[in-house]
Amino acid sequence: MSQSSTDSFASVHSDTSDDESSPRDKLQKSTKGPSDFCIKNISQADFGRKEIEMAGREMPALMNLRKRAGGEKPLAGAKVVGCTHITAQTAVLIETLVALGAQCRWAACNIFSTQNAVAAALVKAGISVFAWRGESEDEFWWCIDHCVGTETWQPNMILDDGGDLTDWIYKKYPELFKNLKGVVEESITGVYRLYQLSKAGRLSVPAMNVNDSVTKQKFDNLYFCKESVLEGLKRTTDIMFGGKQVVVCGYGEVGKGCCAALKALGAIVYVTEVDPICALQACMDGFRVIKLSEIVRHIDMVITCTGNKNVVMREHLDKMKNGCIVCNMGHSSSEIDLVKTHVVCAYLKWVHVRPRVDHVIWPDGKRIVLLAEVRILCSSNEVQVMKLRCENLRVCIFSDEYVASLHLPIFDAHLTELSDDQAKYMGISKHGPFKPNYYRQVNFSLSRRQTLTHILTFNVSNPFCFLL
Amino acid sequence: MSQSSTDSFASVHSDTSDDESSPRDKLQKSTKGPSDFCIKNISQADFGRKEIEMAGREMPALMNLRKRAGGEKPLAGAKVVGCTHITAQTAVLIETLVALGAQCRWAACNIFSTQNAVAAALVKAGISVFAWRGESEDEFWWCIDHCVGTETWQPNMILDDGGDLTDWIYKKYPELFKNLKGVVEESITGVYRLYQLSKAGRLSVPAMNVNDSVTKQKFDNLYFCKESVLEGLKRTTDIMFGGKQVVVCGYGEVGKGCCAALKALGAIVYVTEVDPICALQACMDGFRVIKLSEIVRHIDMVITCTGNKNVVMREHLDKMKNGCIVCNMGHSSSEIDLVKTHVVCAYLKWVHVRPRVDHVIWPDGKRIVLLAEVRILCSSNEVQVMKLRCENLRVCIFSDEYVASLHLPIFDAHLTELSDDQAKYMGISKHGPFKPNYYRQVNFSLSRRQTLTHILTFNVSNPFCFLL
Amino acid sequence: MSQSSTDSFASVHSDTSDDESSPRDKLQKSTKGPSDFCIKNISQADFGRKEIEMAGREMPALMNLRKRAGGEKPLAGAKVVGCTHITAQTAVLIETLVALGAQCRWAACNIFSTQNAVAAALVKAGISVFAWRGESEDEFWWCIDHCVGTETWQPNMILDDGGDLTDWIYKKYPELFKNLKGVVEESITGVYRLYQLSKAGRLSVPAMNVNDSVTKQKFDNLYFCKESVLEGLKRTTDIMFGGKQVVVCGYGEVGKGCCAALKALGAIVYVTEVDPICALQACMDGFRVIKLSEIVRHIDMVITCTGNKNVVMREHLDKMKNGCIVCNMGHSSSEIDLVKTHVVCAYLKWVHVRPRVDHVIWPDGKRIVLLAEVRILCSSNEVQVMKLRCENLRVCIFSDEYVASLHLPIFDAHLTELSDDQAKYMGISKHGPFKPNYYRQVNFSLSRRQTLTHILTFNVSNPFCFLL
Amino acid sequence: MSQSSTDSFASVHSDTSDDESSPRDKLQKSTKGPSDFCIKNISQADFGRKEIEMAGREMPALMNLRKRAGGEKPLAGAKVVGCTHITAQTAVLIETLVALGAQCRWAACNIFSTQNAVAAALVKAGISVFAWRGESEDEFWWCIDHCVGTETWQPNMILDDGGDLTDWIYKKYPELFKNLKGVVEESITGVYRLYQLSKAGRLSVPAMNVNDSVTKQKFDNLYFCKESVLEGLKRTTDIMFGGKQVVVCGYGEVGKGCCAALKALGAIVYVTEVDPICALQACMDGFRVIKLSEIVRHIDMVITCTGNKNVVMREHLDKMKNGCIVCNMGHSSSEIDLVKTHVVCAYLKWVHVRPRVDHVIWPDGKRIVLLAEVRILCSSNEVQVMKLRCENLRVCIFSDEYVASLHLPIFDAHLTELSDDQAKYMGISKHGPFKPNYYRQVNFSLSRRQTLTHILTFNVSNPFCFLL
Repeated sequence: MSQSSTDSFASVHSDTSDDESSPRDKLQKSTKGPSDFCIKNISQADFGRKEIEMAGREMPALMNLRKRAGGEKPLAGAKVVGCTHITAQTAVLIETLVALGAQCRWAACNIFSTQNAVAAALVKAGISVFAWRGESEDEFWWCIDHCVGTETWQPNMILDDGGDLTDWIYKKYPELFKNLKGVVEESITGVYRLYQLSKAGRLSVPAMNVNDSVTKQKFDNLYFCKESVLEGLKRTTDIMFGGKQVVVCGYGEVGKGCCAALKALGAIVYVTEVDPICALQACMDGFRVIKLSEIVRHIDMVITCTGNKNVVMREHLDKMKNGCIVCNMGHSSSEIDLVKTHVVCAYLKWVHVRPRVDHVIWPDGKRIVLLAEVRILCSSNEVQVMKLRCENLRVCIFSDEYVASLHLPIFDAHLTELSDDQAKYMGISKHGPFKPNYYRQVNFSLSRRQTLTHILTFNVSNPFCFLL
Repeated sequence: MSQSSTDSFASVHSDTSDDESSPRDKLQKSTKGPSDFCIKNISQADFGRKEIEMAGREMPALMNLRKRAGGEKPLAGAKVVGCTHITAQTAVLIETLVALGAQCRWAACNIFSTQNAVAAALVKAGISVFAWRGESEDEFWWCIDHCVGTETWQPNMILDDGGDLTDWIYKKYPELFKNLKGVVEESITGVYRLYQLSKAGRLSVPAMNVNDSVTKQKFDNLYFCKESVLEGLKRTTDIMFGGKQVVVCGYGEVGKGCCAALKALGAIVYVTEVDPICALQACMDGFRVIKLSEIVRHIDMVITCTGNKNVVMREHLDKMKNGCIVCNMGHSSSEIDLVKTHVVCAYLKWVHVRPRVDHVIWPDGKRIVLLAEVRILCSSNEVQVMKLRCENLRVCIFSDEYVASLHLPIFDAHLTELSDDQAKYMGISKHGPFKPNYYRQVNFSLSRRQTLTHILTFNVSNPFCFLL
Repeated sequence: MSQSSTDSFASVHSDTSDDESSPRDKLQKSTKGPSDFCIKNISQADFGRKEIEMAGREMPALMNLRKRAGGEKPLAGAKVVGCTHITAQTAVLIETLVALGAQCRWAACNIFSTQNAVAAALVKAGISVFAWRGESEDEFWWCIDHCVGTETWQPNMILDDGGDLTDWIYKKYPELFKNLKGVVEESITGVYRLYQLSKAGRLSVPAMNVNDSVTKQKFDNLYFCKESVLEGLKRTTDIMFGGKQVVVCGYGEVGKGCCAALKALGAIVYVTEVDPICALQACMDGFRVIKLSEIVRHIDMVITCTGNKNVVMREHLDKMKNGCIVCNMGHSSSEIDLVKTHVVCAYLKWVHVRPRVDHVIWPDGKRIVLLAEVRILCSSNEVQVMKLRCENLRVCIFSDEYVASLHLPIFDAHLTELSDDQAKYMGISKHGPFKPNYYRQVNFSLSRRQTLTHILTFNVSNPFCFLL
Repeated sequence: MSQSSTDSFASVHSDTSDDESSPRDKLQKSTKGPSDFCIKNISQADFGRKEIEMAGREMPALMNLRKRAGGEKPLAGAKVVGCTHITAQTAVLIETLVALGAQCRWAACNIFSTQNAVAAALVKAGISVFAWRGESEDEFWWCIDHCVGTETWQPNMILDDGGDLTDWIYKKYPELFKNLKGVVEESITGVYRLYQLSKAGRLSVPAMNVNDSVTKQKFDNLYFCKESVLEGLKRTTDIMFGGKQVVVCGYGEVGKGCCAALKALGAIVYVTEVDPICALQACMDGFRVIKLSEIVRHIDMVITCTGNKNVVMREHLDKMKNGCIVCNMGHSSSEIDLVKTHVVCAYLKWVHVRPRVDHVIWPDGKRIVLLAEVRILCSSNEVQVMKLRCENLRVCIFSDEYVASLHLPIFDAHLTELSDDQAKYMGISKHGPFKPNYYRQVNFSLSRRQTLTHILTFNVSNPFCFLL
């Protein structure tokens, strides 16, 4: 089981259903949905539908996509098996695929994150879902196995988050790979597994890494972090930013977003970097580039965004002043080395003071404030993270330029159209793509510097090519 | 003769030397320099040396490079023939190459732009220069021809700005190409020529396009434009930016820099774009994306940065309000269509009111203010443009990361070093390169979407590989 | 009963104490506090103490003040009777006054806002408190009456929020006014009452309006709003600001703060103003100044900060597009005219969708999103508002410059000291005040343009003069 | 003679008129102007007229004022004698006064700053001017004396810059004070003189200090400095701001403007302050507040804006690193203590390297770059300073709100009008004034903390009251 299948353990606590029986053992019946599904409680469908509708109002790009397709079914023929968090936001994506003609079956990538009511609404809408909140490990794999297909329905595309579904198919139903047009993977873990396959010469289908897409890099990382870092901090700490001294570790897109937001609100921001190009950008953008050890005694907050590990060490924590806040906006929770801190628990006290807020207390009374257990402080509610991932999944199926164009009506933005003359002068088509290939290929490289062997490219005129 | 060899015609006017004889006809003698050179007046060398020293103080990255090399000669063996503007800034570059062990011969790429005193100082320092201000066309080619080499000295690298030198060698001394390690070209014109050769399969050596380097794209375009657009406008117009409505056409790096600077000073900025990704970035950065025709009646200024042609048309000029300012920060002067405006000169009056400022006057008295004859308003003085180009030439020879690291001491920026453990976790070397190849390859693509067939890559551990 | 005594009705709902008896009817006994008090439950004191300690960590200026006073008792002799919200933050203020030598008695200005545990902790610390959550109106006045004093203890200063305490004393114990050194009032309502007294010639003691202090105007309004508007919006709406079109009505300090924050996060901000000076500032700061009716069809959000009424009218709501957000950052909830909207409820539907979020739905399905029932969206939690008011109360007692100097250590800011020579050159004392009187007198003017007849001034060398 | 009458000595050098005779000795004849004047050369009038027209295009508020007055002559009856710099910008002001009905006579406040062609154009337009570039001291006073009036024309208002005219009238024609409606003074020196008179009880007429007007404080100081500091630095130094470490001494309006602009362009800005309120504002705005001595070794630039003296001392200069730039944006040139630096000239070398740029060179080769001889670096050309002063003079005659409203059309800004209901609610008139008196009285206080005894207030409905 991959990490993503267990990492929301805490969130299950808020689920207070009394029904202790496993959905596997119950009769699954829907008045008008598929006969082939397994969820907690079909009677919650109406509530789930409202949640999906509310989510849809906040995901206008997908709604625009449905409109733009009109009655046409550009995805007719696509058979998608998916394994992701099952939330209202994912449901908007799934139903968009269906609206465009795809057939979908879905399982959960995480035993705790399924919104049962949303699953019920999807089933009622005719989609075979196998998922409920609080699956056991055995149930988790049972759901995935049943989701993969039936004798009469075999998938030609995988949407995966964590790699469990792909791995299951690879191992148990390798023959399905013959029909696959591609695999889309969101998580770093999953991408790493695909890369191992690819390196071993056993990845016979195109695969895409959502995480490194242009849209993800340039929009989600930069703009989303810019907007969410302030909220994440405010919600957990009540800090006022004006005049506070903050170190941001790492000046990639996430770091750039954090720095811009904090500076805009009046914080004094320092940057640490290992890469001279990023360091120079930080300088030019007006940030002092220093080593953490040089400034650590004076700061009010440190935010890690490097993607690396052990960026903040126990020795740094020892030097921080009372009340210093430590949090992480990077991918992994390993950026802050808590192992050494935990180990010496006889020396330090660890107090959970509020949801998402812990204090580590030194013998002299000094308190360091840890936010979100140094997991990503991306947002205060999981919903928004889900929504974000969902946006990324879109990217896999459509070209970045097409996705961007879907968002423009939200901003009432009016694109200028090239004249024939101008297009010829620029050596490009009037309707794009406007970026050269090398720019768009950024999409598909793996993080940690590796590249998948199989890369697909798309163009605006046929954004649906991947599935067709 | 390429465009760059004539485009500074005006600047010659300030040269008031009385000596009308051609340097070709004079005895060229230097007490301690080479015997092989041709310049205007060796006696100006001391004055030129001061100019070079002053320029050096403002180019700390090159000075750092000399220091960092210590006594070593990493460029020993390199024989560079160059053809660029000959200014104090270029001289700092040339002498850095020499300090690192290279041998250099140099000619001017422009008949008017040579600073005679600087040429004299270079000669006195032992470099064979063939250039003076006010060359005739015949003299221009004579200088290039004499610069190429001698029987005992043949170049193994070309640094060209405009392509005239490369073309001359290609046609007259094709055998030299066998020894060439590479061609570095700065101008769009020159790159286009190389591309034609490459397409025809006749470019047998590696060639690089400085103009699309990462450093150029990410630093010069973005940051330089951000800093210089305000100055360019202030120096020509006395406008106050606060509250002024400005349209920036194009949201590439140049446009992003202009928009950021203008917004920071309180202007209300609108953006026009053809590319949905750039348009979406403009939205997220807080700019209204509109078509020029929608807003043209209300604006105080329009700045073109598209790289395309005919972005501002006569019909737009007709609709602008009295006093509207029109200028160009893009590569070419074709962004604003003045042809149709000029043609109807019986209808419109054209008045040159100040250096770099023209008024076009409509019959009803309306005046449109054209800056810099709609050439690039990059900076008010040519020196800075030269300096900029010079910085770019560096990029061709060293890796971007190496160049960036040379700049960091200027900002007293302290780079963090990866631990062995962290480097391993990231899958990269402790000392870089930190960016994947696809990122750095952006360097070498041609503008207008074409790609050179021959591309070199470098790494920090051997930044001098190109020449060795 | 003033408005402030009832306006938190909703907040009582979260109080789930089972004990239904009135504290008035119970024996009030504290092991070591005063014998003279009336609260809900003394046994909650330890929990309340923890709350006060946590609040104290976030109010460093008051903590600095205690330290700076050292063991001295500059407020010895001061007898303060207070009537405010009783929260952990207020408790930090009260205990600071006590630490500096003052004697205090306190009642609640609101029948619902008392934190019972905090009241218990204050009593245990020796302060006579008469307050509990959920007082009846009769109990409210009973508490105030018992708080005023005893035969042996008579106040010489009033700290009031809403004017109920002052009014009660004025009517029932007018003889106490002889001993009063001053009245400090926070609320607009209370200030208005004082003004009426003053105009009628019946206000015989100095009075101060906290609300118009320099610190309040320049720090709380500007900086606090700048930081809190984003959070308030994020917490209620999940909106991303980048590219959103927002109208801010009013460009006073609150409006300036909102505009700066929204612009910094990438929103496109328009301003409406009635005052040409503020309008011109908005222009210079880069905001289009328009009338609401001109832009209302296109915007994503409108925020009112005028202090005026009926700024957003039903006719504006009718024209807004689906999903437009309407909220208020100004003092009063009358900025948005909901009366006419409510009245026609047969036509419009009103749906409460989340805490602090209502939808008004038009027959065609259009939804307008109202936040916080158009009360002030200052912050998502009441605590921060309390804290803010508490900070303001400080201002009444100490000079603005002294208060500012207390905050500087928080920012590790190092003040430069004038030399004797420089002080003489500037014509001021070395240790301030640095601002001329006219600047500081801004403190004491009433809002709505009236001025109190009795105004006090302070200086840094004796910040405690008011109470002594 | 006041300081302003000699402080532009350098500027006379650019005047290369051959005519050495004094205008006093020549026949002064104008075909259609007044008979009563004395200038250099009436034949330059046409050229001067063009200069005035160009200046007028950049001073739209005054042009709007002329339009708004329509054919009416609100200033009929006003007889203004003025003594200011005589430039194209001043001419626009003078001719506006005339257009509104005033009669004017004018002299120069500086022996070198008169633009002879402009003076000629004014004479041709019917205004009695007594001024030329390069007056001797004797001629200076002769001009003022002849300007004051004639037997049939006596002034009822003085517009002065430096106090020389007021002083002359006070001493030689004290009886004129009986008819005076007021004195408007721009310079600190002149205001100080008035204050001495006022303190001695001998100032019998209202007087106004332009320098402390709301418009000057809030617009000119803040916004003008924000825009001009960047240009001033760019024009003299070619510095790029990104990443540069800058200390701004003083965080008043000028300092705030400088800090905002530099931060916006990517500089890292530190602030020094003596006043805790301003220091706290700097903190909240995101600037580190330090003492100059703490950071002086590391900075790239220091800018003084305190209004105080000896802010940068020799000991600071000694510690600065090579190439550090020192300049002044404050009122006086005494902010940087050059006396001690000059005195030890045997030790330090002083080299004038470019207009407005000097280098001070230490024995070890370290160079400190002094800009504008540490006079105000407000703008690179004097014209803009003149324009600025001119804008301020307007303020004296009209209310700030009226002046602001004249500027709004420039920004196409649309003011919202209060409804009757709203005006009543706010307790103000529908058409203003919108600010309480205490706000507007800021106008008239003296700098250095003194207050004039005679203060006038205006209102929008009768902006011309002062002169009528």
